[in-house]
Amino acid sequence: MSARALAALKECDQVFGEFYTSRLIDSTPEDLEKAIGKEIVRLCRKEVEEDETVIDAAKKGRVAFVTAGDTMAATTHVDLKIRAMEDGIPTRIFYGVSIFTACSSALGLQPYKFGRTVTIPFPEPGFTPLSPYENIYDNWSRGLHTLVLLDIREDENRYMTANQAVQWLLDAERAKGLGMISPTTVICAAARVGSPTEKVAAGYPSKMLDEDMGPPLHSVVVPGKLHFIEAYALVRFAGAPEEIADDQNL
Amino acid sequence: MSARALAALKECDQVFGEFYTSRLIDSTPEDLEKAIGKEIVRLCRKEVEEDETVIDAAKKGRVAFVTAGDTMAATTHVDLKIRAMEDGIPTRIFYGVSIFTACSSALGLQPYKFGRTVTIPFPEPGFTPLSPYENIYDNWSRGLHTLVLLDIREDENRYMTANQAVQWLLDAERAKGLGMISPTTVICAAARVGSPTEKVAAGYPSKMLDEDMGPPLHSVVVPGKLHFIEAYALVRFAGAPEEIADDQNL
Repeated sequence: MSARALAALKECDQVFGEFYTSRLIDSTPEDLEKAIGKEIVRLCRKEVEEDETVIDAAKKGRVAFVTAGDTMAATTHVDLKIRAMEDGIPTRIFYGVSIFTACSSALGLQPYKFGRTVTIPFPEPGFTPLSPYENIYDNWSRGLHTLVLLDIREDENRYMTANQAVQWLLDAERAKGLGMISPTTVICAAARVGSPTEKVAAGYPSKMLDEDMGPPLHSVVVPGKLHFIEAYALVRFAGAPEEIADDQNL
Repeated sequence: MSARALAALKECDQVFGEFYTSRLIDSTPEDLEKAIGKEIVRLCRKEVEEDETVIDAAKKGRVAFVTAGDTMAATTHVDLKIRAMEDGIPTRIFYGVSIFTACSSALGLQPYKFGRTVTIPFPEPGFTPLSPYENIYDNWSRGLHTLVLLDIREDENRYMTANQAVQWLLDAERAKGLGMISPTTVICAAARVGSPTEKVAAGYPSKMLDEDMGPPLHSVVVPGKLHFIEAYALVRFAGAPEEIADDQNL
């Protein structure tokens, strides 16, 4: 959280929060309450999306709405700001650190070279949508990297792991056969990005299937064409095999 | 800057900074010096990229290296971290807010739907590279948004404006004729994102050519296919014409 956001929270009459679209990775809402010296009223999905809880309070005083991660990535938060504006309530967003760029930074990949972002869902019995694989392929065939976000079932306390994502990619490759994921394809993973226990790893599928990334949240990156500095960063930062930098004619 | 980064800076023996790859938009290095209670030694390009100034200091004590924006977006900073690791110096990145996602947040666009990022350079006499236009087209034809970063000549104190970028897009459309930029194409601009004077605007090229976005830094977004909430956000947040939301059959 930015120093500026923290200062703004201290000036608010009331602070709401929701932690179902994303979650804090290395602190708790209680830590934040201690830091700002006031209670954070946790809202459930219905209170955010259907009720006027936040809007009503904002008509009476200065109100904050706190979320984990990249707030405006959730459509429901964009909608909340639209509703506030329609009621004539001035709003200001305090941007946070987002997985969209922290993940590329952690791995030393160039943010310019990412194509569209993809989310892999938990497989449902009898239904495996392959569109994430196709979208990754669409980026990869253009030499672009793909940030792969992994399914979160906050209510069931289930978070897809990087290992599960690698297995999903191997299964999708088998089903579609486009030749994107081979035994020498480098796959990257990042866990708890931005926290003191952050971990990144990169390597071939056989290694990445077993790599212990620790507690959630995990993300995966399928790189496109690597610049030699990117390849070198994956070796040094994430333990990718040295030969991937050799391949780049370093 | 995150509260955590600020705390870490206070614990450092020495703080270096460079402000040539990006610049602070609403505070100065002097403000930061006051906040952390110590001097920030400004480094020039040669000191960062060729000399061992930072590495040598880090061998003797706890050293910070501060930049504006998304630190690891600059290859030279990735290289600095690689060099530190090769010398056995432990490093930690404190992620900041990045234009890559703050810009989409400010406009209410979905970060998942951005394709590769593009940079428009200042036109050089007799040489107008059209690859940025082609890359925007590549995203746009697949329904994806494009973040368009604008050229910075820090040493000459020149920053491309959103107006100049819109003119560039019109010129490129004329040269290539792919039918992407028409009189009813919505173009978005954002200035000083994250600062109290942040401004966003969206509209047709005729309006955006003249829209006064104020001082730098400016960025532009060429949207792909808009989800109705995105269209609605552009109307409410950025003053886009109401009819773009009608087109989405709201």
